[in-house]
Amino acid sequence: MDKKATTRKDDYSKWYNDLVHNADLAEHSDVKGCMVIKPYGYAIWENMRDVLDKMFKDTGHSNAYFPLFIPKSYLSKEASHVEGFAKECAVVTHYRLRATADGKGVEVDPDAKLQEELIVRPTSETIIWNSYRNWIQSYRDLPILINQWANVVRWEMRTRLFLRTAEFLWQEGHTAHATKEEAIAETEQMLRVYADFAENYMAMPVILGRKTHSERFAGADDTLCIEAMMQDGKALQAGTSHFLGQNFAKAFEVKFADKSGKLDYVWATSWGVSTRLMGALVMTHSDDEGLVLPPKLAPIQVVAVPIYKTEEEFHRIEEKFMALGKELKAKGIRFKFDGDDNKRPGWKFNEYEVKGVPIRLAMGPRDLENGMVELARRDTKEKSSISFETALATVEQLLLDIQSNLLERSKLHRANNTFEVDTYEEFKQRIDEGGFFLAHWDGTEATEELVKNETKATIRCIPFTEHPVPGKCMVTGQPSAQRVIFAKAY
Amino acid sequence: MDKKATTRKDDYSKWYNDLVHNADLAEHSDVKGCMVIKPYGYAIWENMRDVLDKMFKDTGHSNAYFPLFIPKSYLSKEASHVEGFAKECAVVTHYRLRATADGKGVEVDPDAKLQEELIVRPTSETIIWNSYRNWIQSYRDLPILINQWANVVRWEMRTRLFLRTAEFLWQEGHTAHATKEEAIAETEQMLRVYADFAENYMAMPVILGRKTHSERFAGADDTLCIEAMMQDGKALQAGTSHFLGQNFAKAFEVKFADKSGKLDYVWATSWGVSTRLMGALVMTHSDDEGLVLPPKLAPIQVVAVPIYKTEEEFHRIEEKFMALGKELKAKGIRFKFDGDDNKRPGWKFNEYEVKGVPIRLAMGPRDLENGMVELARRDTKEKSSISFETALATVEQLLLDIQSNLLERSKLHRANNTFEVDTYEEFKQRIDEGGFFLAHWDGTEATEELVKNETKATIRCIPFTEHPVPGKCMVTGQPSAQRVIFAKAY
Repeated sequence: MDKKATTRKDDYSKWYNDLVHNADLAEHSDVKGCMVIKPYGYAIWENMRDVLDKMFKDTGHSNAYFPLFIPKSYLSKEASHVEGFAKECAVVTHYRLRATADGKGVEVDPDAKLQEELIVRPTSETIIWNSYRNWIQSYRDLPILINQWANVVRWEMRTRLFLRTAEFLWQEGHTAHATKEEAIAETEQMLRVYADFAENYMAMPVILGRKTHSERFAGADDTLCIEAMMQDGKALQAGTSHFLGQNFAKAFEVKFADKSGKLDYVWATSWGVSTRLMGALVMTHSDDEGLVLPPKLAPIQVVAVPIYKTEEEFHRIEEKFMALGKELKAKGIRFKFDGDDNKRPGWKFNEYEVKGVPIRLAMGPRDLENGMVELARRDTKEKSSISFETALATVEQLLLDIQSNLLERSKLHRANNTFEVDTYEEFKQRIDEGGFFLAHWDGTEATEELVKNETKATIRCIPFTEHPVPGKCMVTGQPSAQRVIFAKAY
Repeated sequence: MDKKATTRKDDYSKWYNDLVHNADLAEHSDVKGCMVIKPYGYAIWENMRDVLDKMFKDTGHSNAYFPLFIPKSYLSKEASHVEGFAKECAVVTHYRLRATADGKGVEVDPDAKLQEELIVRPTSETIIWNSYRNWIQSYRDLPILINQWANVVRWEMRTRLFLRTAEFLWQEGHTAHATKEEAIAETEQMLRVYADFAENYMAMPVILGRKTHSERFAGADDTLCIEAMMQDGKALQAGTSHFLGQNFAKAFEVKFADKSGKLDYVWATSWGVSTRLMGALVMTHSDDEGLVLPPKLAPIQVVAVPIYKTEEEFHRIEEKFMALGKELKAKGIRFKFDGDDNKRPGWKFNEYEVKGVPIRLAMGPRDLENGMVELARRDTKEKSSISFETALATVEQLLLDIQSNLLERSKLHRANNTFEVDTYEEFKQRIDEGGFFLAHWDGTEATEELVKNETKATIRCIPFTEHPVPGKCMVTGQPSAQRVIFAKAY
């Protein structure tokens, strides 16, 4: 670990890279664009995955697994899908290697060329709807509510760990419905599931809304999204849920017979979140000292560090901590006692600070004598000395407090960096400061494009609101139904 | 579902394919060699994965994730590894598609050719040891105990669902150690973990042993395995654990400084099981009526089917079952009440029989009156009428009984089909009947090869035994240290 890590103020981007490295979350591999997710980073992802997986199952979904490879021709079947996804793809052209003539290496065997190239899935709508065609005959076969946890590949030239990598891990839900209404309800339900997860587990407030036409998923009739604000004021799209209409059903000829026997195309949704959420988690809470993790997702929620000189002291402190640890574990709290004799307490303090462990306990011989334990909370860095007797109750409550404090802090940050602007002049002046800019927009792609070209800001979403207040477009002065969110984005 | 499914006696291979299809476990996809794992099949795999994952974590391992792609040159770095794995691989040669001239399709963009081809991982030793090089400097960095859950691809021309597919799901453990002894102990420990899982969760007895030199993993100094016997007497390799010596450390230049500062190469192991276990599970227990699942891995352990004419009857039976279901769920038992009014009880009985649900409960108006419930166990097909009052305790105990009955039944089958043979004549006469043949072997590859060519049987393993009894090779009469297991295999 490098104690002189870059601060957020110095260079937010470098701060992020350093932190991901120092907290041992992930690293670049030698394979261009592909990352290695290290055990500590993966443990956080596992926690995210387990919570989401339960949420999906609680809403009636099952997991399944579809092939990694998609025949090239499938991508062309849905006209707008091909434009969006059949570009930067990993293409498998051969299925065999052979020894080189000098016997020292291997080379592609030219005789093993595939008749049709295979694409490593950038997303699985096409391969899945090709299967659904055989699964669906009548309304009795509907709905199909399937999710897949998988790796996908979208070739990227400029990559950043978790935020943009050629290969990433994600989940993709793919559902099939008998009616348009049911598919739309599913699209909305899954967006709410994502928002629930973001706010109540990641402690990351999000805005729920709808993408503009130009920002829609390629092949969708409607794309809903949750948008989060990072500490530098930039937006991060944290999850999307797509109403696909009958587009993929038509492309893959998937029809069903309704109760009266009438044939119609099936209605579809798809929705996904990815390891990108790891980047969002880092950038929402962490500070110049390192990672800050919400307790609900922290692989270690409480770490205990003994401070001792003699072996006898060590054992007495260890005994105390192990007893407490047993009680904490019985309550489902993830506890670690770090009795590693090769590392000094100061080193450990730093290590767990960088790794974002929510609560650190420490005990020395004097604490032991006085029946006390030192408690440090990672989010505020406050330290206190508490009675060992009350440690269990204190820790249990504090984990809840830290979880809600992180959410409140993030909400406050977002509130402080969300602005209403009414003129394009003001917008252009202020957009570089970062933040969400609520402004009126005339609903045209031309205006959206102009703002993007001139400022690099995009419309993150048209936020859901029960009481839309109309106004005039900040650029053209034309009528606008409601304010939308402009921001620069990751 | 096709009631006239093929029986095991008619055609074991077709019986297997029909069953996998009828029980809705998996199907072939349009992508040659790749399968779709359907929700019910995936739910069984999830149960397997969760149990194994806990076992790995309980033995100190963490999960991580490494890239899908391996640069072609990496495969050549370990001499025997390249021979084993750099053959039937999916090779990525390009990273972009472009629209065809007619605008109707997409084609590979010849300008987007990779400088070095990427191989879709057939196994990850090379990419992982390339990372370990940067992770390991001193003995303090050891051991590294990492597991990865991932998809891998080995091009296959003749595929069978679960048993042999081009893409499959698996876990691969990759550990690094300071000493040879520690690495060997790890190799043996993980074999025992696999054997524990096979016997106590899959209810599938396995023989622990060592592969012959010619059957070793490409790049290993020693390959340990668990071998199971299927109902047709053929062997199935259910898991392997490899002691890799310093082979990959040398190939990727991974050295560590010991306590005295002396540099040495790191010692390695790798170990894996795959979705092949699904095939083993099917072929170990199932019968002519369909799947038979051990309770510990069954997605539904108890299904309840109401038999009714009136709505009032339905509600009264439903109420009873829901109360029981609540109690069962509180005990961690996976319970399903099937109240689907569109399907008749007979259809449901058949459905859950085909899907291998261990216990089926049924209740009609008369049962309701008498306080009884009909119970059918899937393994023996026995039916009984039990008092509803005692249903909870009966079901709980019966799940344990079914689990142990399946193991005992499989053990008996194996015992009945394991033979000692002392002459090659007898061996050749009997090998086609199926079964494990314990015979003496002179330890040479020549003899192993001869038997394989003449009978298609291979040495499945040299079984671990505390008291090896020497003898004479059944083929050459040369000395043999102990009997080995010959069998035909999947």
